[in-house]
Amino acid sequence: MKVIRGGVTKPKGFKANGLGCGIKKSGRLDLGLIVSDCLAESVTVFTKNSVKAAPLIISQRHARNNKIQAIIVNSGNANCFTGDMGLIYADRTTQLIGESLNIPKANVIVTSTGIIGKPLPFKKIRKAIPKLVKGLSATGSKRVANSILTTDLITKEKAVTITIGGEKVTLAGCAKGSGMIAPNMATMLGFITTDAAISTKMLKTAFKKAVDQSFNCITVDGCMSTNDMVTIMANGFAKNKIISKPGKDFNIFYEALQFICLDLAKKIVLDGEGATKFIQITCLGAKTPKQAKNAGLAIANSNLVKTAAYGNDPNWGRIAAAVGSLGINTINEKHLQIKFSPFHKSEIRISVNLNIGNASATVYTSDLSNEYVRINGRYN
Amino acid sequence: MKVIRGGVTKPKGFKANGLGCGIKKSGRLDLGLIVSDCLAESVTVFTKNSVKAAPLIISQRHARNNKIQAIIVNSGNANCFTGDMGLIYADRTTQLIGESLNIPKANVIVTSTGIIGKPLPFKKIRKAIPKLVKGLSATGSKRVANSILTTDLITKEKAVTITIGGEKVTLAGCAKGSGMIAPNMATMLGFITTDAAISTKMLKTAFKKAVDQSFNCITVDGCMSTNDMVTIMANGFAKNKIISKPGKDFNIFYEALQFICLDLAKKIVLDGEGATKFIQITCLGAKTPKQAKNAGLAIANSNLVKTAAYGNDPNWGRIAAAVGSLGINTINEKHLQIKFSPFHKSEIRISVNLNIGNASATVYTSDLSNEYVRINGRYN
Repeated sequence: MKVIRGGVTKPKGFKANGLGCGIKKSGRLDLGLIVSDCLAESVTVFTKNSVKAAPLIISQRHARNNKIQAIIVNSGNANCFTGDMGLIYADRTTQLIGESLNIPKANVIVTSTGIIGKPLPFKKIRKAIPKLVKGLSATGSKRVANSILTTDLITKEKAVTITIGGEKVTLAGCAKGSGMIAPNMATMLGFITTDAAISTKMLKTAFKKAVDQSFNCITVDGCMSTNDMVTIMANGFAKNKIISKPGKDFNIFYEALQFICLDLAKKIVLDGEGATKFIQITCLGAKTPKQAKNAGLAIANSNLVKTAAYGNDPNWGRIAAAVGSLGINTINEKHLQIKFSPFHKSEIRISVNLNIGNASATVYTSDLSNEYVRINGRYN
Repeated sequence: MKVIRGGVTKPKGFKANGLGCGIKKSGRLDLGLIVSDCLAESVTVFTKNSVKAAPLIISQRHARNNKIQAIIVNSGNANCFTGDMGLIYADRTTQLIGESLNIPKANVIVTSTGIIGKPLPFKKIRKAIPKLVKGLSATGSKRVANSILTTDLITKEKAVTITIGGEKVTLAGCAKGSGMIAPNMATMLGFITTDAAISTKMLKTAFKKAVDQSFNCITVDGCMSTNDMVTIMANGFAKNKIISKPGKDFNIFYEALQFICLDLAKKIVLDGEGATKFIQITCLGAKTPKQAKNAGLAIANSNLVKTAAYGNDPNWGRIAAAVGSLGINTINEKHLQIKFSPFHKSEIRISVNLNIGNASATVYTSDLSNEYVRINGRYN
């Protein structure tokens, strides 16, 4: 696996664009588009929040067939809690993109991030779509990566190449997210592109596992968004022998996909609202991987652990109390082992061994700082 | 029901004392004792944290018979994660109190709050017990209420009288708690006394329900302590006809008990670390009371809701997202109703109607301020 510069247009057969259509008053980029030259195998993972934004409801329908050719995204407005008009606007957006690209709207994913409860300024989007489509280019990855940011401080992109059966295959992605943030709410979005040829079934297997161990292992404030969504498109332009079963080729592909997802997920944590520390928490000796992950997340979401990290206070009592709060009967003082690196460093590693089994998991979070409170309390 | 001044020694047949034995370097009170003149019916509710402090393990054994005559408590050291010596010290403390009062140690509850992972300075406690017992008095309630505080800013006491079958019955309580706090960890403790004559069974019924709707409905930072414990003693000195079944007498008793518990629980929230706002959250229209409470707690524990309250930002999107994060399938945008009082006031009321059933619950929390981060990040 080789890390290369660039983003979602690095794999063959992908174009992208991003522009400012006026949703953000600042004039910054707020509308992005990623298009594959042919219909791609696709898998999308959605938020588990039962309050789902309008574009996610539309995209859930379109994602069902696992065949997608375009992703349209806006920032600055989440199109959430916007009633029937929100659904109509999200649907029409996919229709307009479909007409412009001459593809069915069912092959278009739509998503939004930004303020909730305010009507989507659909006219601005409609007006900008011709220009957005016209400007699509094989060097447009940075523009789409920038168009999805809200209070993020950094653009998040990653790309790698691998070799499958003698053919060069490229994977790339971009993401946004830094909490559920000002002015009202933000979101984690991730878009992964690859020119790999891979069956729907194996793409599903690889993507769900990779997302589970990356985007689903991070927490900034423990608050689940209504708009979280991660999508992959695999268009087969690399002409590798199609990956249709477990084995060596699949493993190479999975390793690269996992690397991209984890890199982007870690960047979200590093860009967490007010974050001054990056905290990696590994839970060992659990009975199941799920239990290990839950224990890790209990520590990661503890305000007391997060403020201790911020204050350079290596407070293992708070770590123990967080693990104990899960109420796992078999955990007790005598078997629980806690280790951590110095808290005054910018990266902290915490390791907890429950000593009741052989499963493990690693999760990632940031500290809780005065800046987090300032950012999230400042609106109005 | 009549509210009266005073604390745990207001009911007949109770004495208390508190002194500073040197656990706290500040010299403030750190050792307290509550004693009934006769063996009392008693119920204790413990933390659900699977990591339990040593005194809780000893007290769990003693509480099993529902007959208690004394409660010994220290602050400044939680006696948690202190190995076998912690258990021995907690056991010996009950033994020394038993010997001093000429009662079996099995009738003594012991509890601790303060720093964890440090050996309990047992010699200081042992040395102070004769003086502590000698100083027991029917006006000692304030001293015990002060002896249990750690970073609390206010003493928490409440007392009421009621009439049952023509007899005056008194209930009173004291509590401590303001988060899981500096320097390492704190705790919620509550001690309730009453001279009511009541059967074990009815006392259990009343106390568990009252605790469930008061102490278990509050959250400051969502962090569960290893030392939480609430105990009631009912010694029968009021000479009322014993409450041994549901009915009018039981209802009068329950209402007063619930009032005391809720008053103390609210005081804990008001004294929450760094709290500038008191937030009451009512969830209506849930399928079950448990679901209603979980929805309330999801809102109460959302850092985004708490910072919004701190920043006077009436951000209903965050409230909706918190409810949605529970993943209740039947909840959706169309049915969810959210109401709230102005966020710039010191007391905020939030009401959420899920519109999927008839159950409701109310929970209480404080906001998340810069002061909270300062308090919990400042150690070292």
